[in-house]
Amino acid sequence: MYRTHTNGSLRIQDKGQQVTLSGWVQKVRDKGFMIWVDLRDRYGLTQLIFDEERTPESVMDLAKTLGREFVIQIKGQVIERESKNPNIPTGEIEILVQELEVLNAAKTPPFTIEDETDGGEDLRMKFRYLDIRRNPVKNKLVFRHQVSMAVRNFLANEGFIEVETPYLIKSTPEGARDFVVPSRMNEGEFYALPQSPQTFKQLLMVGGLDKYFQIVKCFRDEDLRADRQPEFTQIDCEMAFVEQEDVLTIFESLTKHLLKEINGVDVEKFPRITYDEAMRLYGNDKPDIRFGMQFGELNDVAKHKAFKVFNDAELVVGIAVPGAADYSRKEIDKLIKWVQRPQVGAQGMVYVKYNKDGSFKSSVDKFYDASDLEAWAKKTQAKPGDLICILSGETAKVRAQLSALRMEMAERLGLRKPDEFAPLWVIDFPLLEWDEETKRYHAMHHPFTAPKPGQLALLATDPGAVKANAYDLVLNGNEIGGGSIRIFDKETQSKMFDYLGFSPEEAQAQFGFLMDAFQYGAPPHGGLAFGLDRLVAILGGQESIRDFIAFPKNNAGRDVMIDAPAPLDEEQLKELNLKITL
Amino acid sequence: MYRTHTNGSLRIQDKGQQVTLSGWVQKVRDKGFMIWVDLRDRYGLTQLIFDEERTPESVMDLAKTLGREFVIQIKGQVIERESKNPNIPTGEIEILVQELEVLNAAKTPPFTIEDETDGGEDLRMKFRYLDIRRNPVKNKLVFRHQVSMAVRNFLANEGFIEVETPYLIKSTPEGARDFVVPSRMNEGEFYALPQSPQTFKQLLMVGGLDKYFQIVKCFRDEDLRADRQPEFTQIDCEMAFVEQEDVLTIFESLTKHLLKEINGVDVEKFPRITYDEAMRLYGNDKPDIRFGMQFGELNDVAKHKAFKVFNDAELVVGIAVPGAADYSRKEIDKLIKWVQRPQVGAQGMVYVKYNKDGSFKSSVDKFYDASDLEAWAKKTQAKPGDLICILSGETAKVRAQLSALRMEMAERLGLRKPDEFAPLWVIDFPLLEWDEETKRYHAMHHPFTAPKPGQLALLATDPGAVKANAYDLVLNGNEIGGGSIRIFDKETQSKMFDYLGFSPEEAQAQFGFLMDAFQYGAPPHGGLAFGLDRLVAILGGQESIRDFIAFPKNNAGRDVMIDAPAPLDEEQLKELNLKITL
Repeated sequence: MYRTHTNGSLRIQDKGQQVTLSGWVQKVRDKGFMIWVDLRDRYGLTQLIFDEERTPESVMDLAKTLGREFVIQIKGQVIERESKNPNIPTGEIEILVQELEVLNAAKTPPFTIEDETDGGEDLRMKFRYLDIRRNPVKNKLVFRHQVSMAVRNFLANEGFIEVETPYLIKSTPEGARDFVVPSRMNEGEFYALPQSPQTFKQLLMVGGLDKYFQIVKCFRDEDLRADRQPEFTQIDCEMAFVEQEDVLTIFESLTKHLLKEINGVDVEKFPRITYDEAMRLYGNDKPDIRFGMQFGELNDVAKHKAFKVFNDAELVVGIAVPGAADYSRKEIDKLIKWVQRPQVGAQGMVYVKYNKDGSFKSSVDKFYDASDLEAWAKKTQAKPGDLICILSGETAKVRAQLSALRMEMAERLGLRKPDEFAPLWVIDFPLLEWDEETKRYHAMHHPFTAPKPGQLALLATDPGAVKANAYDLVLNGNEIGGGSIRIFDKETQSKMFDYLGFSPEEAQAQFGFLMDAFQYGAPPHGGLAFGLDRLVAILGGQESIRDFIAFPKNNAGRDVMIDAPAPLDEEQLKELNLKITL
Repeated sequence: MYRTHTNGSLRIQDKGQQVTLSGWVQKVRDKGFMIWVDLRDRYGLTQLIFDEERTPESVMDLAKTLGREFVIQIKGQVIERESKNPNIPTGEIEILVQELEVLNAAKTPPFTIEDETDGGEDLRMKFRYLDIRRNPVKNKLVFRHQVSMAVRNFLANEGFIEVETPYLIKSTPEGARDFVVPSRMNEGEFYALPQSPQTFKQLLMVGGLDKYFQIVKCFRDEDLRADRQPEFTQIDCEMAFVEQEDVLTIFESLTKHLLKEINGVDVEKFPRITYDEAMRLYGNDKPDIRFGMQFGELNDVAKHKAFKVFNDAELVVGIAVPGAADYSRKEIDKLIKWVQRPQVGAQGMVYVKYNKDGSFKSSVDKFYDASDLEAWAKKTQAKPGDLICILSGETAKVRAQLSALRMEMAERLGLRKPDEFAPLWVIDFPLLEWDEETKRYHAMHHPFTAPKPGQLALLATDPGAVKANAYDLVLNGNEIGGGSIRIFDKETQSKMFDYLGFSPEEAQAQFGFLMDAFQYGAPPHGGLAFGLDRLVAILGGQESIRDFIAFPKNNAGRDVMIDAPAPLDEEQLKELNLKITL
C-alpha cells in the first residue's frame, strides 16, 4: 500500500499516528541536522521532518538527495509542529520520518511548479503534464468536472436522457468546415466528425425520446482565432412538444442551479431582450449587462446643425462613460487613437465632457450649443461627471465600434467583475443573415431553425426581416448557449433549403434522412446547446477557456506536447487509397 | 403549451380534470359512433375516447382521419373507463376529447411500432428513428443512460475526476488500425482518433490528478466482426499510488454497486483466477462461471493404450455435459459435426456416456476399459447421467475448441441465465503474446503494462513466461473490462519498446512525450477500462450490444440511415491536399 492518507488529510487530532504517505517533493529545506520537506499531492501539502536525532542515518542521507518533484513514499509519525502554519489545513502537524523510499527521481522541471510559475505559455503547453500539477490548472480541471456533474445530475433529475450520438457521420458543406475521416472499408469515401449532433438530436425527438441531452465533443476545422479550439465540448439538449418558453424555462433553471451550486450565488433575474434591441442598446448580440453605458441614438438631436460628419452619417450614437469627465486632453486623444485602431475601425470620436458643475465642454462646441449637448446627455443617460463618447457612420459598423469602446471602458473602469453574474436571454434572432462574400442569405443559426409562426411568407419578399424563435443565453458578455425551435415538417424544411441555395438534389443527398423522418410523425421540438468550455470559464471567473481544458491545442491546431498532427506512414496512406498532393 | 401531462401520468385520482395531451397515435379503433385512440409518448399510453354524443362533430370527423403515428394534441376531460385495463398504469381512465389538433400527419411506417415488430434488421437500421419509438429499443437507451449516470456518480463519490482528453491525437502504428483525420492547417499531416485515452490518462497521473475517469468514445478501424463497432464507448479510469489490489477493490465496488443499483442483485463474490488456470479449466480467458463443466485434462489417464489419436495429441481434455448421457446416436453425431465445423475446427470428438446406472459406454470402447473411463469421469467431475465429451490435439487449439463446445452446451441446456450474474477477475496475464503472422512477441494488453516485479530479467530468456499485473473483469463469459499496473520509469519503458521491436528512434517519435514525462517525477499508477456498450448489454441481460447504441453502424462500418461514409466534394479534397488513388 502506497499510502494510508493523502497529503491533505492529517490534522492535530491524528497526533501520534503511524502513517504512510506518498507524493511529490514540493520543497526541501535542509538545515543539516534537520531537513523539512513539503510533500504534495492532489489533495494538499504535508510537512515532513527528518531530524538527525530521531531519524535513522541512512534515511537522513537519502533525504539529502531529494530534489524538487521527486516522487517519494515515507513512513513516520504524526507530531505537532513547533511553528504552526495557519494557511494550510495540515498546518498544525508534521510527520517525523522513519522510512523513506524514492519511488521515482525527477529531473529539474523546466518551470517552477508553483501557483505563480516562471514558465511561459509555450513551455507550459509542451510540458502540460507538469503544468497540471500546479494548483491553478489542477483546480480548473476539478472545477470543470464539478460543473459537468452538476449539469448531468440536474438534467437527469429533470427527466432528460443522455444519449450518445455517433462521431463518425457525414460531411455537409453548409456551415463551417468539417474534419473528415477517410474510410478504409468503404473505399474513396469519408466520414465527418460532427460540428454538433444537431440532426441526430432532432431524430431522437422524432424517435420519441422526448428530452435528450449529451455532454459531447464537437469539431470545427476553422482558422483558429485566439481562444478557439478545433475540438470543443457542448452541453447539447433537445425537447419535444415544447415552445420557446418551455426551453427557456428549463435552461434558466439549469443556469440558476449552477450559479447556486457552483458559485454559491443566487441570481433571480434572467432579463430578456430582443436581438434588435440588443443591437440598438449595446451594438452587440451578447451584451454584458453588469454595467450600464447603454447606447443613446442621437440622430434626432445631432443632425440639425452644420456638422457634416454627423449629417452624412446613417447613425450618430453615444455612450456616457461614468466619471470620466475629468479625462485630460491627452487621455482623450489616446482614446480617440484607440477607436481608430484597425481592430475597431472608427474614423474619429466626438466627446462631450459633462462636468461635475453641470456645464458641458465638447469637441464640437463650434457646431452645437449647450442645449444640444444637454439633449445628448439626456439620450445617453449621462450624469454630471461623465464623458459622453460619440461615434457616427454606417449603422452596423458604428454599433460594433461603439460596442468595442463600451467594453473597453468597462474593463478600464473595473466594471466587469468576475464574481458578479448577469445572465441575459437574447431572443427573436433574425432567421437569415446576409453574407457579403457569397451575396446570399445564410441561416443565422442553422437551416433547421423555424421561422416565427406566420412569417414564412415574408421569406419571399423580405428575407432579412424574418424572425425566428431563436435565442441565446448570454452571461457577462459571453454567449454561453443558443438554440431555437426547429422546423418539423418536410415542406417547410424543403423551402428553407431552397432559400438557402440548396438544389433539391443537394438537399436530398445531404439531409434526405431528416426530411424523410419528418414525414413519419415528427413532433414539434426545439432545444439548445451550451458551450461547456466557455460556461466553465465564466463560472470560474475567467475569460480564457484554455486552462479549463486538460490538453488544449495551440492556435495552429497543434498539440505541442504529443506533437500532433504528424505525417502518416506511406503504408497507412496506401491502405486508405490516399495520396498527398503537396 | 403542448401538454399539461405526459401519457404515462394520469390516474383515477385525476378524474374530472381538464387536460391537454400530445403524442403519437398508437392505435385507432373506430366504431363509427365512438372512436378510441391510444396516444403514446416516451412515458406511456393514454386512451382517448371520441364519442359522437359528447364530442363536437368537427372533432369526430377529424378523428376519423387519424392514422398510425400521427402526432396530435388533444384537450379533454379525464373520465373513468368502463372497461379497465389493469396492464397499464393509466388503465383506469380515458380522456373524453373535446378538441383535437393534428400537429403532424404521418405516412404509414415501414414496420410496426410495436414491441414485436415485423421489421427486419436492415429496415430497422435505415429507419432507426422509428425503431427507437419501440419500447424494447427506447428502454435500452434509457437503461444505458441510467448505467452511465450510476457509474459517474459512483466514481465521483470515490474522488475520481472526469477529465476530457483530446480526440484529435497522433497516430501510432502499434496495435489496431487508427482512424485518421487530415489536417488542413498543418499541410500533409494527420491527426488520429484515439483507440483509447491510454497515454493521456497516464500523463494525468504524472500530472498529479490522482484519480481520473472518463466515459469516452474510442475508435478502431478494424474489419468488423459481428457485434463490433468502429466507435465504441469506454469507462476509462486511472489511479496513482496504487497496486493491483487497490484497482481491483475499487472496480469490484463499482460493479457491485451497478448490479445492486441497476439490477437489484446482491453479488458478494468476485472470485479470482489466474490466466493460466482459466485456460486450463475453461480453455478461455473470459470463462462463464455461471455453470460448471470445468475441463478435465486426461493426458495422465488416456495415453497408455493403443489409441493413436490420443497418444499423438499434445493435450487430451474433456468436459462432462450434465444430464446428456441419454443423447441418441443421432444427437451425438450432430454434436460431432458441430465441433467439426470450420468455426470450431476439431478433428473429431470422443464421447463417454456415464449412464445413470453407473455403467459407461464410449466411442472408444475398443481401446479403453471401464476403469479407464471411470478415471476420465473422475477428472471431468462427471456424475451418472452425464455425457463426457473429449477433444484432443495441440493444446491452444484444443482448448479453444472445447471452450466453444462448453459454451454451446451451456446455451443448449439453458445454463446461461441472463438474470444471473457471475463476475470473475482473471489475473496474472502474460505480458507478451507470440504472433504467428509477424513472428514476434506483441504486448498482450499494450506496451505500457508493467511486468511483475522481478520478472524483467526473464524478458531476455523466456519472454512468453513473463507475467504482468494485468487483469480482466469477466461477467457472464464476457470481458467487460481490463487493465494493468503501468510502467512508470523511462528505462523500463524503453526496454519494453525495444522488446516489442521499436527502434529507439521510432519509440522516441511516437512515445517520446510519455518517456520524457516519466523523467519528471512519475508516480506508480495503474488503471482499467470497462467497455460500456458490453457492460450495459450484459446488465440488460443481452448478448448483443447493437440496440444499446442509439445509432449503430452495420458490419461494413456504414450508417445506413444517414448513408455515411460518403464521397467528398472535390473542393474539400483539394483543401486537404488529398487525392484518391482508386
